[in-house]
Amino acid sequence: MGAAEELAAFDALAAKRIDDDANYQWRIARRPVGNVRPEDFEFGVTEIPEPREGEVLLKTHYLGLAPVMRFYMQATARTGDVSLGIGDVIHGRGVAQIVKSRHPDWREGEIVQGQMGWQTYKVSKMTAQEKFFRMPNNGLDAALGAGVLGMTGLSAHAGLFACGSPKEGDRMVLSGAAGGVGSMVSQMAANVVGCDVVGIAGGPEKCAFIREHGCRASIDYKADDIEAMLDQLRPEGIDLYFDNVGGETLEACLERLRMHARIVLCGSISEYTREEPFKLSNYTRLRATDSVMRGFFVYNHLSDWDRVMGEMSGWIADGKLKPVQDIEQGFGAMPRALANLYYGRNVGVQCCSVRGEPEEWV
Amino acid sequence: MGAAEELAAFDALAAKRIDDDANYQWRIARRPVGNVRPEDFEFGVTEIPEPREGEVLLKTHYLGLAPVMRFYMQATARTGDVSLGIGDVIHGRGVAQIVKSRHPDWREGEIVQGQMGWQTYKVSKMTAQEKFFRMPNNGLDAALGAGVLGMTGLSAHAGLFACGSPKEGDRMVLSGAAGGVGSMVSQMAANVVGCDVVGIAGGPEKCAFIREHGCRASIDYKADDIEAMLDQLRPEGIDLYFDNVGGETLEACLERLRMHARIVLCGSISEYTREEPFKLSNYTRLRATDSVMRGFFVYNHLSDWDRVMGEMSGWIADGKLKPVQDIEQGFGAMPRALANLYYGRNVGVQCCSVRGEPEEWV
Repeated sequence: MGAAEELAAFDALAAKRIDDDANYQWRIARRPVGNVRPEDFEFGVTEIPEPREGEVLLKTHYLGLAPVMRFYMQATARTGDVSLGIGDVIHGRGVAQIVKSRHPDWREGEIVQGQMGWQTYKVSKMTAQEKFFRMPNNGLDAALGAGVLGMTGLSAHAGLFACGSPKEGDRMVLSGAAGGVGSMVSQMAANVVGCDVVGIAGGPEKCAFIREHGCRASIDYKADDIEAMLDQLRPEGIDLYFDNVGGETLEACLERLRMHARIVLCGSISEYTREEPFKLSNYTRLRATDSVMRGFFVYNHLSDWDRVMGEMSGWIADGKLKPVQDIEQGFGAMPRALANLYYGRNVGVQCCSVRGEPEEWV
Repeated sequence: MGAAEELAAFDALAAKRIDDDANYQWRIARRPVGNVRPEDFEFGVTEIPEPREGEVLLKTHYLGLAPVMRFYMQATARTGDVSLGIGDVIHGRGVAQIVKSRHPDWREGEIVQGQMGWQTYKVSKMTAQEKFFRMPNNGLDAALGAGVLGMTGLSAHAGLFACGSPKEGDRMVLSGAAGGVGSMVSQMAANVVGCDVVGIAGGPEKCAFIREHGCRASIDYKADDIEAMLDQLRPEGIDLYFDNVGGETLEACLERLRMHARIVLCGSISEYTREEPFKLSNYTRLRATDSVMRGFFVYNHLSDWDRVMGEMSGWIADGKLKPVQDIEQGFGAMPRALANLYYGRNVGVQCCSVRGEPEEWV
């Protein structure tokens, strides 16, 4: 099946309609091989569950999408708490409203974000494992909890600040700059820290977008010779490389490190659908340049949640961080929304409005 | 030429004799290709130079050997201040005595260590670039300045403490454990920090040696299956991998990282003589485990010199750090001493006594 036919098949799934009389779900029909395909997803419906003592009923409004979800579907995610079988509801975090509560700590009407799964209702004991947080009542759109002020935002913040140790004037390179994490990293690096950011993205529209969102210059990986452009735009080398793609781009940046440089390994989307892992030939450049390559796992930074969300909300209010979410309309579009990440179709944080915007809160 | 013939040719060079009436030198005859060969070295003799105002005359007693010297000979070392041509004296640090001084800050009779080059005398302005340090008068053998209390020791200390952030109880793996840096790292990690160290070395003698110098268990890379032994000796994985060899061993350790692990890239001797660089297939394990891979360059840690040498001298006095230097006797043996590193023949820090021990100080 070619890309156009595949997208048409995703569009057909997106036409599925839901109502509020049942709980609709997307489940794993098949383990993805390579990119996700329409046949990997099964649409299901169950009764809306009833909360027992100590539980709440949550109604999903927005769901966030992240590349890791393909790993959940493959049962290869190494998060320690996820192992899904065929027929299971796909994992995913989202923004929901408590529509019934029999839990002493959570009230009806509260808007929260947490592990909802790809479904329109959920009964929950609100355990620590589901990592629910109340959405702050700070005038910002609750939809942001599905991305910019959610796990994507925490990834961007922890990757840049806790792992990248950015400094004013750092000669920075950022791949995946138009993506969810990338579009936040570029703005925080440029507007909060004062880094000089060269961003890499695919196509002229995305390049124009990233130049308006923190990047001083852009490289179009679909059209440009990345190495030649790095030589031109970063003639003095790289202090900080924030890596969202892995592979040859990582190798090209390793080759151009300045002394005491930092590489943050945030994602490797170029590698997720490779048959064989990419082999890095020049990791010893870390030695020659006294540099650090650091991987990170966002769930280890949850204890910083309140501080990070407070900082980022402030930067949004100040105009330093423009929140950019790419919102699919309707629960049926969830499979396509995930596929968008691999087709490179999203700009900003990919998420989905379950009933189509405007979402109606109780 | 086979290894036995090559060693015989190095032995023939080692028979060269020197006296105190001239300045003898080892120079670059040819750029090494692969391992160093006897024909890469040229033995030369010049007059002993006369110091002018602001200079001292230094007499070399001990010279240290390090793998980086092959890069000096290839003019590919990236230290920023070294680029040697054919016919130039090979770079190397050593312990020397000031036999004449016309410099206001340095007195005749003082014992120092610094950049001597492979020669028996040197006139110096004692510039910062040569990085001369006075040997402390603390009762320890001045020969230690050519290794254990020299740049090798600083590498071991900076690599372990400043880069590796070792913690008591860390499940550690150390490659090149019988080498100069390795034999110091193992002892400091085990006896100062309280790490549990599994060492990797070549052959039963070296394995016995490392078990007496800080390693709780040993892996013989010449006889054992490294991956199977790591599974057996490190079933819970690795908190800290101190890498002196690179290549497949690094890959095997990356595969077994625990969460928040640290890899220190100190050396990659397995790669120095490879035709093609080793390609690392599993660097993304850093992401899955929230881990750090850090390279370091010892000259960036020079500002810690006094503190580090003081600490290490104290540990030697306490018996926590047994100094192990493998001393070739006689200036003629310098090429063989360098080759020893690549043949894996040295145990501890390789160095050379210029006139044969006991060296006579003025």
